[in-house]
Amino acid sequence: MSGSTFGNKFKITTWGESHGKALGVVVDGCPAGLPLTEDDIQVYLNRRRPGFSQFSTPRKESDQVEILSGVFEGKTTGTPISLMVRNTSQRSGDYGDIATYYRPGHADYTFDQKYGFRDYRGGGRSSGRETIGRVAAGAIAAKILKKLNISFTTYVSSIGDIVSDPADFDADYISKNELNMPDAKSCEAASAYLSDIMAQNDSIGSTVKCIVSGVPAGLGDPVFDKLDANLAKALMSIGAVKAVEIGDGVMVSENTGSYDNDGFHIENGIVAKTSNHAGGILGGVSDGSDLLLTCHFKATPSIACTQKTINKSGENIDVSIRGRHDPIIGPRAVVVVESMAAITIVNALFDNMSARMDKLVEFYK
Amino acid sequence: MSGSTFGNKFKITTWGESHGKALGVVVDGCPAGLPLTEDDIQVYLNRRRPGFSQFSTPRKESDQVEILSGVFEGKTTGTPISLMVRNTSQRSGDYGDIATYYRPGHADYTFDQKYGFRDYRGGGRSSGRETIGRVAAGAIAAKILKKLNISFTTYVSSIGDIVSDPADFDADYISKNELNMPDAKSCEAASAYLSDIMAQNDSIGSTVKCIVSGVPAGLGDPVFDKLDANLAKALMSIGAVKAVEIGDGVMVSENTGSYDNDGFHIENGIVAKTSNHAGGILGGVSDGSDLLLTCHFKATPSIACTQKTINKSGENIDVSIRGRHDPIIGPRAVVVVESMAAITIVNALFDNMSARMDKLVEFYK
Amino acid sequence: MSGSTFGNKFKITTWGESHGKALGVVVDGCPAGLPLTEDDIQVYLNRRRPGFSQFSTPRKESDQVEILSGVFEGKTTGTPISLMVRNTSQRSGDYGDIATYYRPGHADYTFDQKYGFRDYRGGGRSSGRETIGRVAAGAIAAKILKKLNISFTTYVSSIGDIVSDPADFDADYISKNELNMPDAKSCEAASAYLSDIMAQNDSIGSTVKCIVSGVPAGLGDPVFDKLDANLAKALMSIGAVKAVEIGDGVMVSENTGSYDNDGFHIENGIVAKTSNHAGGILGGVSDGSDLLLTCHFKATPSIACTQKTINKSGENIDVSIRGRHDPIIGPRAVVVVESMAAITIVNALFDNMSARMDKLVEFYK
Amino acid sequence: MSGSTFGNKFKITTWGESHGKALGVVVDGCPAGLPLTEDDIQVYLNRRRPGFSQFSTPRKESDQVEILSGVFEGKTTGTPISLMVRNTSQRSGDYGDIATYYRPGHADYTFDQKYGFRDYRGGGRSSGRETIGRVAAGAIAAKILKKLNISFTTYVSSIGDIVSDPADFDADYISKNELNMPDAKSCEAASAYLSDIMAQNDSIGSTVKCIVSGVPAGLGDPVFDKLDANLAKALMSIGAVKAVEIGDGVMVSENTGSYDNDGFHIENGIVAKTSNHAGGILGGVSDGSDLLLTCHFKATPSIACTQKTINKSGENIDVSIRGRHDPIIGPRAVVVVESMAAITIVNALFDNMSARMDKLVEFYK
Repeated sequence: MSGSTFGNKFKITTWGESHGKALGVVVDGCPAGLPLTEDDIQVYLNRRRPGFSQFSTPRKESDQVEILSGVFEGKTTGTPISLMVRNTSQRSGDYGDIATYYRPGHADYTFDQKYGFRDYRGGGRSSGRETIGRVAAGAIAAKILKKLNISFTTYVSSIGDIVSDPADFDADYISKNELNMPDAKSCEAASAYLSDIMAQNDSIGSTVKCIVSGVPAGLGDPVFDKLDANLAKALMSIGAVKAVEIGDGVMVSENTGSYDNDGFHIENGIVAKTSNHAGGILGGVSDGSDLLLTCHFKATPSIACTQKTINKSGENIDVSIRGRHDPIIGPRAVVVVESMAAITIVNALFDNMSARMDKLVEFYK
Repeated sequence: MSGSTFGNKFKITTWGESHGKALGVVVDGCPAGLPLTEDDIQVYLNRRRPGFSQFSTPRKESDQVEILSGVFEGKTTGTPISLMVRNTSQRSGDYGDIATYYRPGHADYTFDQKYGFRDYRGGGRSSGRETIGRVAAGAIAAKILKKLNISFTTYVSSIGDIVSDPADFDADYISKNELNMPDAKSCEAASAYLSDIMAQNDSIGSTVKCIVSGVPAGLGDPVFDKLDANLAKALMSIGAVKAVEIGDGVMVSENTGSYDNDGFHIENGIVAKTSNHAGGILGGVSDGSDLLLTCHFKATPSIACTQKTINKSGENIDVSIRGRHDPIIGPRAVVVVESMAAITIVNALFDNMSARMDKLVEFYK
Repeated sequence: MSGSTFGNKFKITTWGESHGKALGVVVDGCPAGLPLTEDDIQVYLNRRRPGFSQFSTPRKESDQVEILSGVFEGKTTGTPISLMVRNTSQRSGDYGDIATYYRPGHADYTFDQKYGFRDYRGGGRSSGRETIGRVAAGAIAAKILKKLNISFTTYVSSIGDIVSDPADFDADYISKNELNMPDAKSCEAASAYLSDIMAQNDSIGSTVKCIVSGVPAGLGDPVFDKLDANLAKALMSIGAVKAVEIGDGVMVSENTGSYDNDGFHIENGIVAKTSNHAGGILGGVSDGSDLLLTCHFKATPSIACTQKTINKSGENIDVSIRGRHDPIIGPRAVVVVESMAAITIVNALFDNMSARMDKLVEFYK
Repeated sequence: MSGSTFGNKFKITTWGESHGKALGVVVDGCPAGLPLTEDDIQVYLNRRRPGFSQFSTPRKESDQVEILSGVFEGKTTGTPISLMVRNTSQRSGDYGDIATYYRPGHADYTFDQKYGFRDYRGGGRSSGRETIGRVAAGAIAAKILKKLNISFTTYVSSIGDIVSDPADFDADYISKNELNMPDAKSCEAASAYLSDIMAQNDSIGSTVKCIVSGVPAGLGDPVFDKLDANLAKALMSIGAVKAVEIGDGVMVSENTGSYDNDGFHIENGIVAKTSNHAGGILGGVSDGSDLLLTCHFKATPSIACTQKTINKSGENIDVSIRGRHDPIIGPRAVVVVESMAAITIVNALFDNMSARMDKLVEFYK
């Protein structure tokens, strides 16, 4: 693998480094005839844009997207859509000394081991800015899904040990607070907690949940390309994610079959499930109920308090990471999680089209 | 995707159903010159074989493997290795009535939705017997890794709420008990608990942990083919897995950066980490320390107690699943987890070979 | 790449060696609901079966296929179809001495260079028997295509310098002669010529043409996965093929644009082309007219007359290849060409399904 | 497939249309540590640049490349290299009427059939300008190969029925004439012939040959990813190529085995072949001798003389294509052929690294 391409049919290839000239993505396999403007994409990029919250890096980037190909007279043509965002606020000077040592929790050491050297400016390719390409592509995927009545509710469900109570859940509130939490109570508690963490020159972990509604039954290919397997890859590929859960997730290991199994029943003439412990996927194939996805993000590794590490000369040293960093990853990652889920589901939709002879014959009639 | 192929260079394609004639796998991309016998593979298959524990299905299968191609004079030739296991103990009669309804927690409903009908005998392709191909291929992958001094310690770390205490960990004990737990205390508690669960016609969830030692630094390709992303897909593709964790996993969302970051230091002239919260992977690339993987398995969905479901005529019915079923998945899945991890790591090793110009020039000198 | 898998959605993985236990193929991605029996496949295998013509190897193999998975109650299930043919007439003794030297025109030297050693029995994996898997899979592909009214006319159009005159073309005659030529005149001339070649302990080249009718317009993906590009790969991957032509093929380099361009016109209300120099493909996408494919096969490299070569000790030696060999490849390769074309077209049909938003929305309505 | 990505390990994804904002390519999987500048790439782009020969389109484009990512301090980092060329000389007005009808020999009709509509400006994605991305990527591939002492000699061997006589071959002459022919005699004859063709408002076909020297033995993966199969796909994917030959190509169907087989012998202690009819590939694997590749290009389909076609209203009409067109494709395609061959060989080199256990163990020691 070469690593920067994701998807089999709706194929995205991202490129770019934190302090390079630009970042972008090529989206190949988008169906022809989808109305698409730069605004459609900008709305998504703005959701991950830095510099607009007290809880995000002060690095301000306008992150303006440019469509370079694949759209003609306002519609996708079926050929590759190339999207680019120029970097404008590089301050590489901040990173000069990073060249000489390995930051704990970062990819510095591993990239050096793999490639023999690295672009150390702001983490280079391992930076969170890499997700610009994912989100730009995700905006397109989400627009396709919207035409099929598939929609997303994505939010930060916990920050440190502050956990949003499902009883307080308010979907409308998510986009109204800087932390993208789904209720005022947990948001306020988390805000206070975060201010405290920042005062200690520290950072904190968080959890992002994504609910996908309207997914038709039948998506996902047994046995390796199960829908949940591809979602797990998609989500685990996001920097700082260390765990992915589907439905009840880690809790299933504590529960019995009689609890865990979701009963089927007929409700108003339609197949329904009594519960959704499985998170909408059975045997790797969607069952028509909501997909329930959870990602656990570690704390931002760049922290200003003192840490032990080594330099390239092999000496033990103490470091304190300066620069412009987020104290938490979750809130800005909400749209990244949603994008990766959207891209994965679009691929599953396309892959599923040739699953049955009767539908194939019908399609080409 | 067509779903039954995994891996980019060390590519495995599995086939077969629970009650078909046979199951198997084609392993393509195995390097030439690896000594390989049917015994090498049988040892792995025996670790997942049913019928030999009080806590597994009474269906007895000898699961004898046959090497059909790719090995000549005791060594792999570099061409596809075809491995087959004949089914011998099919009792399809057990499953006749399953054709008419959808078992909760199973893929019955979703396969029908996807394909229009299904092989209902024992779950067909969605059965756990599908993992025979994975394990046969995993035996080859593990043998390759052994030549590179990469080894595995895989075990059941929890059953229901019985959790093995790390303080009691004894690697040698794992293969000495039917539950593949790493200490006598938790094993005994779990055995009693399991007997109780079985008496209630119920089943229970479990957790499998896999530690991989000796993995060189540098494996994994940013940004989508991160080592952890590919491992997450590999493990989530195993039936009944609902959560995958790397290193501290879900706990990272509760912790601070100052806790989460693993400090580097020089120890006896070698780079070492003070802790391994990251589970051996930073920025998607291995850092040379142990890989720490955790999978959460739901309880076996086939249970004899009464459940609500629907039949194909769209009527609400009560069912009780008869047949020969395991009350727990983890113990027999240990070798499946190990196999999927091994196959993923072999692919990462191969993919990494072209990462650097200097090594490329050296290779072809 | 690992080399033995072809196709992105209708994915075939072949395995097996000339003198191993068996050969076979796993077909993954076949739509569910296609009626399929062993007879359907046997008919195709019989077309390439050795030992039944005076112009083929006297090695007699029944080449009986066994369906091991993926078919239930007479229909494909959408899961992998595993097909196997046991070798029964191995006479490895014939090949013992081949281990010590490199046969001219064969893969002996290159396999040794690549893998360090080789299965020398009958060429191992490089044998023409490898095509059994292709043909078994091709039978399934062709059956899918038949449901879509896509059909094949495939034949030997030349043997040495005996070329079938298009004016004499008789499609019905193809299956009625051992050489699969399309007219009695060229067939008789070629038979006499071949007898002469065989008397000289020599072999001869040949050309196979394949016409595919009923292909809908719109198949093929610009720019690398053009339909002709994928067909070229498919056909060039057949052993002994050294040139592939689409439409007028090599002649286009001699012709003018005014000759080469196929004019469009409306005929009985339908779009038609005045000529078909392009062979049914424009810009890599099918145009609705017949696909015209031509493959050039070199002479069988195994010949009994004396040749210069070297042995593994690096000495210059003279060899004369004994054993059971065909004096010509084309006639038995007709069904292989047809199979590879069919598999490629099935993949193009599947890939094309997600090309347009309107059809996607319609599909999932 | 999504069509615009080529290669498994050294993976290129091209994008852009003839009259869009820009064209480009993302090269993923380039090894780290290769010195790379925009000049390295510009040299290749200049070889295909339009407007600088009396036998090419008068459309003048500077085709200046910009490296947007993947290079740091003058060296590749191992992460994606994004390359972009802005279009500057679009004159879409030339193409307005093309929107209403289908040009013979072009992709107009097939793109409309596939996608429902098309970017008609200059052929959009089906334009020859699409090859900019291929050539930019090819420059990188060729630089990698140069480090391994693999080199190319690529030229126009025929134009219409003017064929360069091998006896006159002069490699140095190729880059010294606008037609990239290898001898003055054929070049002069072809120039006169071309002028005549142009005077008739017509165009003409041509042949490009590519010789690759220094390729190590052992590249290519049996059975579908044979080196020649992947080369055939790479070359046939170039617009206007209608036939691909390896070694003797179409001539093999006329020859005997005793002629066709290349004998081996030891020459100065090294394995040599007495002839190279096979074009450097046996059984799909390179044999260490020169690769001999031939592509046949049809005449440029855009011609000013009158042609029959239909418009989108389904009426039969006469058209004469105005605009700025090349009267021949071969001379500017030489560098495209070379690029596609280089990219294919780099992939084969990378894929081959994991072919043997002994080399794998050595690599990771």
